[in-house]
Parts: sequence; C-alpha cells; structure tokens
Amino acid sequence: MTERIERMRGFLASQHLAGWLSWRPDELVLQLGHLSYWGLSVSLLLASGERILFAPELDPGDTVPEGVTLIRYPWGRMDCANPFEILQSLIDQELRRRGVKRNVIGTLRHAHRSSLPVMAAELPPFPPEAIEAISSGTVQKTATDAAFLSLYLHKTRDEIEKIRLTNRAALAGLDAWRAALQPGRTEAETAAAAETAVHALTGRTGIHYARAWAMVQSGPHTADAGRFNRSSGRHMEEGDLVFIEFVTCVNGYWSDLTRTVALGKASAEHEEVLSAVAEAQQAALRSMAPGVSAHTVDAAARAALARRGFAKNFTHATGHHTGFRYHDPGFALAPGSSGRLEPGMIVTIEPGAYVPERNCGARLEDDVLLTPAGVEVLSSKETEVNP
Amino acid sequence: MTERIERMRGFLASQHLAGWLSWRPDELVLQLGHLSYWGLSVSLLLASGERILFAPELDPGDTVPEGVTLIRYPWGRMDCANPFEILQSLIDQELRRRGVKRNVIGTLRHAHRSSLPVMAAELPPFPPEAIEAISSGTVQKTATDAAFLSLYLHKTRDEIEKIRLTNRAALAGLDAWRAALQPGRTEAETAAAAETAVHALTGRTGIHYARAWAMVQSGPHTADAGRFNRSSGRHMEEGDLVFIEFVTCVNGYWSDLTRTVALGKASAEHEEVLSAVAEAQQAALRSMAPGVSAHTVDAAARAALARRGFAKNFTHATGHHTGFRYHDPGFALAPGSSGRLEPGMIVTIEPGAYVPERNCGARLEDDVLLTPAGVEVLSSKETEVNP
Repeated sequence: MTERIERMRGFLASQHLAGWLSWRPDELVLQLGHLSYWGLSVSLLLASGERILFAPELDPGDTVPEGVTLIRYPWGRMDCANPFEILQSLIDQELRRRGVKRNVIGTLRHAHRSSLPVMAAELPPFPPEAIEAISSGTVQKTATDAAFLSLYLHKTRDEIEKIRLTNRAALAGLDAWRAALQPGRTEAETAAAAETAVHALTGRTGIHYARAWAMVQSGPHTADAGRFNRSSGRHMEEGDLVFIEFVTCVNGYWSDLTRTVALGKASAEHEEVLSAVAEAQQAALRSMAPGVSAHTVDAAARAALARRGFAKNFTHATGHHTGFRYHDPGFALAPGSSGRLEPGMIVTIEPGAYVPERNCGARLEDDVLLTPAGVEVLSSKETEVNP
Repeated sequence: MTERIERMRGFLASQHLAGWLSWRPDELVLQLGHLSYWGLSVSLLLASGERILFAPELDPGDTVPEGVTLIRYPWGRMDCANPFEILQSLIDQELRRRGVKRNVIGTLRHAHRSSLPVMAAELPPFPPEAIEAISSGTVQKTATDAAFLSLYLHKTRDEIEKIRLTNRAALAGLDAWRAALQPGRTEAETAAAAETAVHALTGRTGIHYARAWAMVQSGPHTADAGRFNRSSGRHMEEGDLVFIEFVTCVNGYWSDLTRTVALGKASAEHEEVLSAVAEAQQAALRSMAPGVSAHTVDAAARAALARRGFAKNFTHATGHHTGFRYHDPGFALAPGSSGRLEPGMIVTIEPGAYVPERNCGARLEDDVLLTPAGVEVLSSKETEVNP
C-alpha cells in the first residue's frame, strides 16, 4: 500500500488538507485496500500517512490490512439507540487527539455510482443524516472532488496485481460458462454456472471474497445487448450467437468482461458481425499506447466497424476505467473524449455491434492495462493482441 | 394492483398531496409492481390513480405492468450530455399538462437502505444532483416520510401472492443447498449451489427475474453468525452445524430465510443449541396473532432460549418486516418495540443462539404472514407451526 499512501499524501498536500474522510466502499478499497462487510465503515487518512478505520462491532475485522488502526462502534446492538452518534464522536475524538480540525479534512461530496460492500443484497444502510453529520464541517469542493476522483485513474503495482487476480477469477468463470453452453439450456442457467465458478473460488490462496454477476443473452436477444444485458429463460439453440456480460469482484477489486460466441456453427451473416467486432477490438488495442488520446482509441474501433458496414450499430463508447468498481470514475473512451492514456491505467476495450435486421449482436470486452511499453490485456487468456 | 393504488390514493388524500414522486427501486415495486432495470427510473403516482414511469431508453421496458404510462428519457446515449435535465423537463411537462404544481407532490427524503435494481453489481448511477433537481420544490416532511413508509407494512393480496412465489423460489434454493452439503465441500461452494438454483428459475412461469445471495458458515464459524454472515473456503466436516442466511428476490419481491442443519450427526451440545433455537422459533410463532405486540413475540422467543440457558446468546431482534426489500421499513420484533401485528404484515421470525464456548451457533428464520385468523408461514415446507 506504500505507493497508494504516498499518492494520497501528495493529493492532501496539493489540496492543503490534513486528512480525508470516506465511507463509500470503493473509496475504502482505494485508501485502505479493504472491502467493507456491511458498507458501514468510515476511513480517515491523515497527512502523516496514518490510516484509521471505524467499523461496526459486527464487522468480521479479519480482512483489515496491517497498518490500519481499527476502531469499533456499536452498530447492530439492541442496546444502542443511535450508533451513528457514537461513530461521529469517535471520529471527532481521533481528530481532536491529533489537533486536527474538521475544516482541514476533505470528503467526496458527490460520487456518481459506487461499489457494493460484501453484504451485496441491499444498499448499505448508512442513514443519509448520519452521512451528513459525519461530513459536516469538512471541505467539500468541486475541485477537490475532481482531484480525489483522479486518484482512481492510475493503479499502483500492488493494485494491478490485485486486479490481475480478479481477472484470473473472471476467466475461470468464463470457462465454466463456455462449458455450460448447450442447446436446450436457458440463458439464466449458463449465467448461474459462470457466477458459481467464481463464488466457489472463495478461500483459494489470496481470495477471501469472490462474487460475480453474469448477464447472458442468446439468439435474437443478442440484438438488445447494446441497450441492456439480462438473462432470460430462453432455451439456447444450435447456431445461436451467445453473449455474456460478466462482472467480477475479488477482495474489493473488479473486472468487467464480455464475450460473444457461436453455439455450434453460426450463420454467415452472424459470423460477419462477430468477426467485425473482433477486428474492431484488435484495432482499438493496436491503437493504444501511453500518450494516445481516448478518442483516438475509440475512433480506431469505430473505423474498423464502419469498414464492415456496422458504423451505426456501435451505439456506445469503446471503453471506461475499471478496477475499484465495475465502472471507475474517469474519462470514457468515446468520440470527443480528451482523456489521454497513461501507464497504470486500466480501461475496458469493448466494441460492439447490435444488428436488429440480422437478429443478432456481439460485443467483446477485455480489461487492458497501460504499461510504459504499451498495453497488457489482463483478461488475456483468450484475447491476444495481434500487432 | 387496484388495492395498492387505492391505498396510495388514501395516503395522498390524508397528506393533502396531489401526487408522489419516487426513484428508489423498492418504492417503484410498491407503487407500480415494477422492478427497475438500471435503477434510473422515476415513478409519478397521481391522486387520480394515474401512474407514470419515466425510464431510460435503454431499459428493457417489457416488464412494465399494464396500466402504467411509460415515458422514455435518453440516458446512456452518446449524443446526450445531460439526460437528467431532460428527465426533469419531462416530469415537469407531465405535471404542467395536468395543472399539478410541485408543491403538492411529495417525495420520500430519507430512506434508510433501499433495494437493488436488476443491474445489481453497482449502486444505481443516479447522480445526487439529479435526485436533488428532480425532487426540488416537492413536499419533504418527516411526518409525510413516516406515513409513506407505513405503506410498506401491510401487503395486498396481490403482493402476498408475489412474495409467496419468492418464498417458493427460495425453498428450491435451500433444497439445492442441502443437496450440496457434504464433508469436504467448502462453505462458498454450497452457497453458490443455492444461488444457482434460484437464478436458474428465471423464465419459469411468472418469473422474469430471480437472484439470490447466500451466506454459509460451518463448524466454528457458526458461532460468528450473530455478528455477520460470510461464506469462506472452509471445508465442511462430518458433525458440523452448517448455517445459511439466504436472501432471494423474484421480480422485485424479497424473502429472507435462515437454516441451520447438522451435517451428519452433531454433538449433543451442538444439538442442544439447535433444538433450543427451534423451540424459540415455535414459541414465537405460537405467540403471534393480529393485535399482539411485537415485543410480546420477541419475549416469547427470548423466554424459550432463557429456559434452555441461552438468554445471553440471543444477541439480536426476533424479526423485522420483509417483502419489498431484504429488510423492509417498519418496527422490529424486539424488546420494547411497541408495534402491533396486523393482518397483511409479513415479518421474519429468526431467533438465534451463538455460543462461542461451544464453538457453534444456530438461527432459524422464516417469513410469516399475519392473517385475520392467525399466521401462515410462507416459507413453510419445512417449518410447521405446532400449536
């Protein structure tokens, strides 16, 4: 974590802040390398590099990394009417103890989206009033928000290894999915097989939490895959194109992959869509290098699809940042995007073509790390860059 | 839905409101019987009984119930810089068209928790500024919030059928879990088996969406089950107590169940814990009837555990409302709770005992409907009320 802590300290110095207070699950992963169980934990990172985690007494606590000071508060106890008041007083106590005032502590006011905690069946139960109370008196500025969110853009070496692990887990899920593909099976059955394979990795070396969300579409449903991805009870048929959007979280780090395959032999006009998308993905990958702008990569994918007559069928951006969430904050790889690729960034490359008049659609999505030398496809078992 | 619409109209009349604006997934299920795909839909219910759903163009749209007017807005399109401005102008247009002012429309300001949309791998991407803009100028009062949330307490006949279906799906998941229990298997593998069985029901009659979250603990890990529930890679052993917390959502309606079983023959001191919890659950169920207060039911469970010497091991409430979420708003079944059971309510009954000195814990949880005559256990295939 040393590299990340130093970046956080640099950020605090640049913003003239003495500390940073967070509660969103992905902010805690970024700053502590820790995935919250209930989604009710608060982190306080100080300019000294000290990191404090306030977590419910009911939290497991055993996944808190070394070097993080754990302070418990009594959420979930029957005898405690307002645990969040106690949480706030504990935070204030730690600040006072260090002579740090709230008006030199920053918090991210607005996050569009955030990740889920381990307890992923419900939105985290932090009452909005508690959030308001905890962050009251802190610095909340648009410019500071933007500077904090830019910390998501470059992954450290340690984080890259963790996201690599997530991608390996995801590839095991995709193997299980392909093994489950059979005429007669429903989309949902194969989605479940992919999720199960990831879930079952829990407890393997280095993996204390593994969960996946799979969305499978087949046959004519693939034509909708550019609008939404939802598994149905449709029974797959020989010759179908079959599509999976596959989201994986391991220990708080995310990958976002998509595969489209033919079940048996697809028709020539479906194969044409699939191969055009594969070409577009290769074109995008070949265009990538440090210093290249996001719109250039998007344009490479778009031009490849246009050459095959599918310009209007590519209805979304070519990619986005990923790793701390399913969708990380940061620039899109889209027309007009002025972002520039730099080493340490991890972006999806996901061109697609959705062709209702052919009753099909396809997308191929990989997670790609920018290196000083070029790119590395983290989800690369299947996708090779052909230079 | 007629019954629910009439209740909503009664609520609006009592609050002197002309309409109600919502965006949280469970509020939409309550008012429209519709589970949002992206979590980016807004519902507007008017005193006339008219129901309008504003949904992204990218929404599937095919699960919107009859009688709901669907209006699309362009979220997710590359050529649309601020779709939420358009959403707001569409809402304003519908209000103007009916001569309804914003200051007679209510919105729920604060919800502690809410459910997840179909796209369940991330928190819904509604920017907080968009929520503020959409709800600006509307009535947001603590008393109105409380009155709205009380609408969750009584399920209509139609909703009871839907929650019954969810419970049936959950029981299929629990059957699959029991079938997967074997010495040598990991907790996570059996959790995955339970989730898979529910997921695979997608497409069966009446089921367009089915997903489950399973948390399995075994052996000594069951002693922690009162604090948190998390599957690990522990390999189960003959004689273990094995525990599952099992959350299921079908079409937007939820169930929340727990089972604890012995893998093979448990030790006498583990069996004693399990049988004490079973007695406590039976005692709670026998105490239930319309008009009975929540604390009475809790006391019945607590007394049963105390008789067996496990008073201090029952560390949480006996139950909570469920159905529109994993945890519905409403009173807990806990010491001091002044809530009163009434027909149409669905509550969990989930006594537990967690006994670190015996290296084990157990909880049994069922979803129970209050009827005019007494109670019906919706998750009843296994739990019979022994009167």
